[in-house]
Amino acid sequence: FAIAMVFGFSNAISQSDSAMVASIFESTLTDGDCYENLRVLCKEIGPRLSASENAEKAIQWGLKKMESYKPDTVYLQDVQVPHWVRGNKEHASFKEAGKEHPITISAIGGTIGTEGILTAPVVEVKYFEDLEFLGRENVEGKIVFYNRALDPVLLNTGMAYGGAYEQRSRGASEAAKYGAVGVLVRSLTHAEDKRAHTGSMRYEDGVEKIPAAAISTVDARDLSSALNGSNNITVSLELRCQKLPDVIQHNVIAEIKGAEHPEEYIIVGGHLDSWDIGEGAHDDGAGVVHSIEVLKALKDLNYKPKRTIRIVLFINEENGNNGGKTYARIAQEKGELHVAALESDRGGFVPRGFSMEASNEQTAMIRSWENLLAPYNLHLFKRGFSGVDIRPLKNDTVVLVGLVPDGQRYFDYHHSVNDVFESVHKRELELGAASCAALIYLMDQHL
Amino acid sequence: FAIAMVFGFSNAISQSDSAMVASIFESTLTDGDCYENLRVLCKEIGPRLSASENAEKAIQWGLKKMESYKPDTVYLQDVQVPHWVRGNKEHASFKEAGKEHPITISAIGGTIGTEGILTAPVVEVKYFEDLEFLGRENVEGKIVFYNRALDPVLLNTGMAYGGAYEQRSRGASEAAKYGAVGVLVRSLTHAEDKRAHTGSMRYEDGVEKIPAAAISTVDARDLSSALNGSNNITVSLELRCQKLPDVIQHNVIAEIKGAEHPEEYIIVGGHLDSWDIGEGAHDDGAGVVHSIEVLKALKDLNYKPKRTIRIVLFINEENGNNGGKTYARIAQEKGELHVAALESDRGGFVPRGFSMEASNEQTAMIRSWENLLAPYNLHLFKRGFSGVDIRPLKNDTVVLVGLVPDGQRYFDYHHSVNDVFESVHKRELELGAASCAALIYLMDQHL
Repeated sequence: FAIAMVFGFSNAISQSDSAMVASIFESTLTDGDCYENLRVLCKEIGPRLSASENAEKAIQWGLKKMESYKPDTVYLQDVQVPHWVRGNKEHASFKEAGKEHPITISAIGGTIGTEGILTAPVVEVKYFEDLEFLGRENVEGKIVFYNRALDPVLLNTGMAYGGAYEQRSRGASEAAKYGAVGVLVRSLTHAEDKRAHTGSMRYEDGVEKIPAAAISTVDARDLSSALNGSNNITVSLELRCQKLPDVIQHNVIAEIKGAEHPEEYIIVGGHLDSWDIGEGAHDDGAGVVHSIEVLKALKDLNYKPKRTIRIVLFINEENGNNGGKTYARIAQEKGELHVAALESDRGGFVPRGFSMEASNEQTAMIRSWENLLAPYNLHLFKRGFSGVDIRPLKNDTVVLVGLVPDGQRYFDYHHSVNDVFESVHKRELELGAASCAALIYLMDQHL
Repeated sequence: FAIAMVFGFSNAISQSDSAMVASIFESTLTDGDCYENLRVLCKEIGPRLSASENAEKAIQWGLKKMESYKPDTVYLQDVQVPHWVRGNKEHASFKEAGKEHPITISAIGGTIGTEGILTAPVVEVKYFEDLEFLGRENVEGKIVFYNRALDPVLLNTGMAYGGAYEQRSRGASEAAKYGAVGVLVRSLTHAEDKRAHTGSMRYEDGVEKIPAAAISTVDARDLSSALNGSNNITVSLELRCQKLPDVIQHNVIAEIKGAEHPEEYIIVGGHLDSWDIGEGAHDDGAGVVHSIEVLKALKDLNYKPKRTIRIVLFINEENGNNGGKTYARIAQEKGELHVAALESDRGGFVPRGFSMEASNEQTAMIRSWENLLAPYNLHLFKRGFSGVDIRPLKNDTVVLVGLVPDGQRYFDYHHSVNDVFESVHKRELELGAASCAALIYLMDQHL
């Protein structure tokens, strides 16, 4: 604990810290509500894309659920959110030598629909540079099929996702610049299966908007192999997506008032919205119930925080991040001093540690808790990205932290019909919740 | 790497070590066979209790599979194994106020059968001390129901298992001492579900043998709650288990001859046998295919080991450990110097690190590799139990190591119908295999 000493004795961790952390884990593992809360959020509410009726139900559920744990206050914060709908049908197939092969697809969130059925020849690429190499003459009037796989060698699966992400987020506009009429994007998953993984995309201003759909990795393999054997493959694509007027929904915020510095805030959060397929169990039901469990654990253990602890259930992380942006804007308008923010938005898997955006001194301080947290199998204390919802809070003083669960299975479920309650393990979820509560406690005591 | 320096420059890890470890992970994650090998072992062969036809099939498969990777030699080692069979029927129920409730059970491996249907009143206990407290007058003629749960607070689930294990292993004989006529044992799992988890048991010499079955945790809950409301509950139990004469089966051993010290051995292994329910996917199909993958990776990378590397697929870990005992006895008879042994027998989950039985100096040496292995999310380098199969090799000089995968899900599957191929994740399995290969490489270079 030598490093902690640099900051003076009062900041050094103590036996009572060890005891409190042990109590947090014991309480969460024996008396936690997070698994049952996740069941309700997934099974009784279900998918909850921003602006949907289900998202509003989740907001009201979050409000009532947090009230039941008796924080000092719970309230809603208005957030304007986009309203994109998938429509009542989506369908795709490719035709090889007169034979039609159906393809499992999912419209990418934010895409326009097709006008009726779009049928066009296909061209496969892996990088945007391939489009330049092919030139407009080989792309115009075609559907561009992006087929870059996630790099299996990267241990950090989030990095592998990041390495393939642009195909989904910018692929439509990049292809449209060369005259493409639509895009199919290989699902951003390591799994080889028949599930399509959606996600967000953006159209570039001034570029023609063309429809975009994710296709399953098995269909990507089959389509690629068909294209290898023939240059006479066409794809038919039908999407009925629409963008409707924005809607006002809400962040849900609960507070336990600080005893020493009520004007200083430490927050923990996840996002209530999810994609409209699956149940948003790992993304980010887990983060929501982790955060609510922090409230329950601290209340159950009768902890009186020094700073005001806020639990924030954000809306609209998936397609706009308006919840995170609105929260940060209002915090700034009110001059609220945010000491630290923790986000859980990488799934409900067994926790590995934390990823931090913080100064050298703050990072050293958090690393001084490694020995205290190692018995709970928390070993990663790395600098790195924190979380989308809390990132707008970034300034020179706030500590931003992301919970890092094990990531090997995450992209099997992410943004797909597969992201359901049953894919979350009770103990793993509870350990994530306890890890969040322990870190919030330590940050309240020692930052 | 200061600690490594104590042992002299030649033992310090180098850039070529980093490169070799990186190559092992890259090769296993991009070109690994372990997942497909596990599919064959689980789906084409299936459960493989010692002495069964399936166990022999698995032995022949292991022999051929290892031959296909072209080690210097592959051979079988005779092992005498017990032959216990479940029989063609098992059934249990409890009767409450005239109403019969079926119970999900599994005969505990090694138990005798019942004579026809055994029906008797039930008494619930949690500890052997409870039997003493109750006294013979309250136990005689009854079925003892052991209902001690795994402690959910222990992060190390193996410790939680260990804390409840004696109910299954010794419960029958302990109850028989008080005149009980049978035992039901709460399944050794954290999960609350309708699956019974079998395992091994032993009868104490000179104590009456009575039949023993594991019951699912949900049935344990229901039976306990019925017992709370009434003292007129009877259980009916029918088991048709039999013990047949011992059989000769085999350990399967492959070798890559050492270039500098062929007379020194470093071994890696898992066990081929499994319980007769489920498919033995995590226990210990994973360890088998991890070990075979070490052979493949080292051959693919054209590694010439200093010492002779042996891959050992043990038989009969589950109900006798005759494979491990026989291997160690023959090694001693031949005067073979075993430098190190690594076992994978804790499932195919994402690896966390290693558990070691070694001297202070050896432990310090292995810990000096922490920085090299941390990028692969291997953080645990703890002293602790290695593995059942390799434990008989223990002496003053050998280093014994167990791979430690994450354990939170393990007992959901362990010894149950649930331990099937589908419960193993491809990347997690591959990471375990690469971790084993990396450690074998480092031990060969630096021990």
